[in-house]
Amino acid sequence: MIVGGVAAGMTAASRARRQDPDAQVVVFERGEWISYGACGLPYVLGGAVKDFDALVARTPAQMRARGVGIRLGHEVTGIDATAATVTVHERASGRTLTEPYDRLLLATGVAALRPDWAQSDLSGVHLLREIPDGQAIEATLKGARRACVVGAGYIGIEMAEALRARGLSVVLMEKAPEVAGRMLDPDYQRLVRAELERRGVDVRCNTDVVRLTGRDGRVTGVQTEHGLVRADVVIVAVGVRPRTELAGGAGVRLGKSGAVAVNARQETSVPGIFSAGDNTECIHRVTRRKVHIPLALSANRMGRIAGVNMAGGDARFPGVVGTGIFKVFELGAARTGLTQTDADSLGLDAVSVDVKSTDHAGYYRGAQPIHVRLTGERGSGRLLGAQLVGCGDSVKRVDVVAALLHRRASVLDLFEADLAYAPPFSGVWDVLLVAADRLSREL
Amino acid sequence: MIVGGVAAGMTAASRARRQDPDAQVVVFERGEWISYGACGLPYVLGGAVKDFDALVARTPAQMRARGVGIRLGHEVTGIDATAATVTVHERASGRTLTEPYDRLLLATGVAALRPDWAQSDLSGVHLLREIPDGQAIEATLKGARRACVVGAGYIGIEMAEALRARGLSVVLMEKAPEVAGRMLDPDYQRLVRAELERRGVDVRCNTDVVRLTGRDGRVTGVQTEHGLVRADVVIVAVGVRPRTELAGGAGVRLGKSGAVAVNARQETSVPGIFSAGDNTECIHRVTRRKVHIPLALSANRMGRIAGVNMAGGDARFPGVVGTGIFKVFELGAARTGLTQTDADSLGLDAVSVDVKSTDHAGYYRGAQPIHVRLTGERGSGRLLGAQLVGCGDSVKRVDVVAALLHRRASVLDLFEADLAYAPPFSGVWDVLLVAADRLSREL
Repeated sequence: MIVGGVAAGMTAASRARRQDPDAQVVVFERGEWISYGACGLPYVLGGAVKDFDALVARTPAQMRARGVGIRLGHEVTGIDATAATVTVHERASGRTLTEPYDRLLLATGVAALRPDWAQSDLSGVHLLREIPDGQAIEATLKGARRACVVGAGYIGIEMAEALRARGLSVVLMEKAPEVAGRMLDPDYQRLVRAELERRGVDVRCNTDVVRLTGRDGRVTGVQTEHGLVRADVVIVAVGVRPRTELAGGAGVRLGKSGAVAVNARQETSVPGIFSAGDNTECIHRVTRRKVHIPLALSANRMGRIAGVNMAGGDARFPGVVGTGIFKVFELGAARTGLTQTDADSLGLDAVSVDVKSTDHAGYYRGAQPIHVRLTGERGSGRLLGAQLVGCGDSVKRVDVVAALLHRRASVLDLFEADLAYAPPFSGVWDVLLVAADRLSREL
Repeated sequence: MIVGGVAAGMTAASRARRQDPDAQVVVFERGEWISYGACGLPYVLGGAVKDFDALVARTPAQMRARGVGIRLGHEVTGIDATAATVTVHERASGRTLTEPYDRLLLATGVAALRPDWAQSDLSGVHLLREIPDGQAIEATLKGARRACVVGAGYIGIEMAEALRARGLSVVLMEKAPEVAGRMLDPDYQRLVRAELERRGVDVRCNTDVVRLTGRDGRVTGVQTEHGLVRADVVIVAVGVRPRTELAGGAGVRLGKSGAVAVNARQETSVPGIFSAGDNTECIHRVTRRKVHIPLALSANRMGRIAGVNMAGGDARFPGVVGTGIFKVFELGAARTGLTQTDADSLGLDAVSVDVKSTDHAGYYRGAQPIHVRLTGERGSGRLLGAQLVGCGDSVKRVDVVAALLHRRASVLDLFEADLAYAPPFSGVWDVLLVAADRLSREL
């Protein structure tokens, strides 16, 4: 039995059936959509994705054809771990059911945070987490001219871009001193902000929302300490929290991060109950600490592990290295491992170097700047992390560092790697090699 | 003393001065150009690089300002290893000099092969290796309408693209059954050929040249077993050989590959004589055999190692993993490690899987196909290699596999890597992860 039908839940369902073709698998999803790429929501709104349906990887009919029971509009409201049953609210009928399970997977994901000031009945105020949120924003956008996005994490940044693409004026508001706060070091945050501003986004950092203003039940603006920002649409993107109510109610242990604690088999502290996806902690291979980093790849990977194990197999989650990437207009920003800020806060003796180069040979047509910060540990020479900001796909080379971090490699290992060179693709010494060379001299 | 002033030679010169600021460094270059990116030559001719000067990384004046003596038009014609002197022909004066050295670096590179049929005085017939070759081709192109490129390795392929970009009709001729023979497995060779043909290149494989035809001293065509191909310009790109005449004359040992044999410090069999760059063998980390793979990054890297060691330091060449990449019109093609063909010829128990996916999320605007073949070793689970053909920069992800091969990683290590995902950059499971997953089930 699986609670939640998006990334981790649906992957687990498919995997469980593959592991044991006789397994009875049922998925309870409180909403009406399953198996979709929530990461694509800003791009539907911005026009880079045709429509919401395009985000769906597998329909309920396709999943049923694979032998997976799909129960839409069914919200699991309680777990009796002793009896091994769940209580389910069936929205259509209003009935409450009690259903037994042999093994239970919590794949409840995260909820978008709604701060006090956003506890409002005004229309035009939206969170963005699920497809119905996206549909509501789409409906609001008709006739809207001014948008305010509150929160400049990657979702806020992606939404700012999407709304500009729709022709709205956009104010992007952030409480912290810079955008992309937890993703990047300050210099790299500034590169992201510069791109936002270059594309016409009015970025206001160090700005707290006091309250929303409205008229006739519709939002008209965002009142800050520094004045009023008029807006027809307000997107609230100030963060997420793991949905752990069910887990907590069942006596499942939560970790320090606030997400569900699991072992490498995705087993919780309660026998028979597994947890996977954005509601769940995992191990960070660089720090060897438990972290809560809700991202699609680890959600899918955890779901896969859980599905195998629930159906009698034995798979282990290998951990993450903190890789993330986002697009901001013409630029990409990516990071993996630890930033200098992360390393400092962990008390590591870390040092970073910055290289500004071009994505391919400087003499070849269309060369664009790329910025790379590489971080390593003094003494050990260990590679700790990388941050990249540059044009388009060029920042996907973050994966080279991510793969090496997974293997606990040194800065020297990166420098010695035989990376691909031809003038349309990189300099003779790829920018990662240049950075590793400089960093190795600092360690 | 350094013989040869391009990639390895100039890198060695700079490094030697950095290692020991008091070192006297002199470079003998038989030509008039130093420190340039020969890999950029097809792109100057095709128009993606402004001019030949743009390929120059450092001018003689810049190198002299760094304290490196640069002697252009000086061809070293002999080495007396016992006396530790070289004989130098100074072109301008016609004089022959004898110059002593403490340590000597052979950085003589490769020569383009000129088959018997190309031993011709006809104008319009060109090799492409150095800037003067490029200039000669540029001069020939004025008024030319039909080109024939003989040899479909990466230089031939790049030249076919360049000449199409200049508006010529292009026949690309290859003796072997397919293009890009040694780079890729047959299926991937065919993808490259399909792109060439799609862009109007007339590709003729299994075709041997019999002789050239000419009139009034100018080439008019290429006679093959299958008929005559008319051409105003013929580019001969059938391969290269290491320039080892000097080494051989000095009693320096050559390896089985025909290139100069060295240890990891770039020392040859003769004390005091080093060798680096395209004329030199190196170790392949996957096969642990000595190979001759003349490419710019390893040439520069060997030059760096040699420069450090010649000036009293201690650096070691880490070896290559056989990474290569080239552009073919809108596509890139890349490989690292071993192809299935390579692995079979080495008697390894290797297996490959092919994945066709998209460079980024399929639902996101502009998704383009990408083909990945991943090769691993049965039993050990070791990663052996990857081949990629896909749009533009997407194939640069070959570097992820290259970095892991450097660390002798397994297919599982690749599958478990925490690669970056957002819809504009990849699928949730990057195509490399999808390939690693499938391959791990075959091992």
